[in-house]
Amino acid sequence: MGRAAARVGDVWSLMLLRDAERGMTRFEQFRLSLGVAPNILTRRLRALTQDGLLEKRRYCDHPPRDEYVLTPAGRDFIPILHALGGWAARHCAGGPMSHVADVATGEAVEPVIVDRRTGAPIGTRPLRLVLP
Amino acid sequence: MGRAAARVGDVWSLMLLRDAERGMTRFEQFRLSLGVAPNILTRRLRALTQDGLLEKRRYCDHPPRDEYVLTPAGRDFIPILHALGGWAARHCAGGPMSHVADVATGEAVEPVIVDRRTGAPIGTRPLRLVLP
Repeated sequence: MGRAAARVGDVWSLMLLRDAERGMTRFEQFRLSLGVAPNILTRRLRALTQDGLLEKRRYCDHPPRDEYVLTPAGRDFIPILHALGGWAARHCAGGPMSHVADVATGEAVEPVIVDRRTGAPIGTRPLRLVLP
Repeated sequence: MGRAAARVGDVWSLMLLRDAERGMTRFEQFRLSLGVAPNILTRRLRALTQDGLLEKRRYCDHPPRDEYVLTPAGRDFIPILHALGGWAARHCAGGPMSHVADVATGEAVEPVIVDRRTGAPIGTRPLRLVLP
């Protein structure tokens, strides 16, 4: 868990992953969406690429231009973003918040974290940590 | 989501919440468990208390001593920690990792994030962001 947090535990990194999921790939798209300083954006894109959540792809040779797409590990992180969004909607005061809806049905999606095997929501049964 | 990350987006904060879930409440317990410098621990405990994830309780008047317990918002964050741990187990290299097991059955728990209404894992159906 500490390793996961060390790799993505930063607001800008999370917002970048969210925008990447929404289909953004290019520096200018991220910059405009996040309103972040270019030097911070450069650093975050490099860190997420080194950590294996984004992959850098050359899309133009002259002039050299790269775009950034989610790796499988990055894509696998997206549900955690939605779970964070659900938690924030429940517990963060301060005005209306965005939420996520199912495109097909239009219904609001409420992320809940369950055990894959039993389907029981995490937190409803006693758990213990097993050290390696 | 950004608000959630701003409140807990730090490795030490996440480790603190994990230890609080495991029953730790006191400064010295957290300090020994995390191996963190006292000044950093003081700052993180204060931040998590101000942000409403931990509650400070006086347990001794002479000398004055406080302990820290999870609030409902803090407790509601714990499943996200387990989801982060599951993600790390799948994607972080570097030696064996701890995992979580059901106390009653001994079976390993695998956190998966689903939509409460449909039960569909998040990421298996197209979603869209609905702005407030």
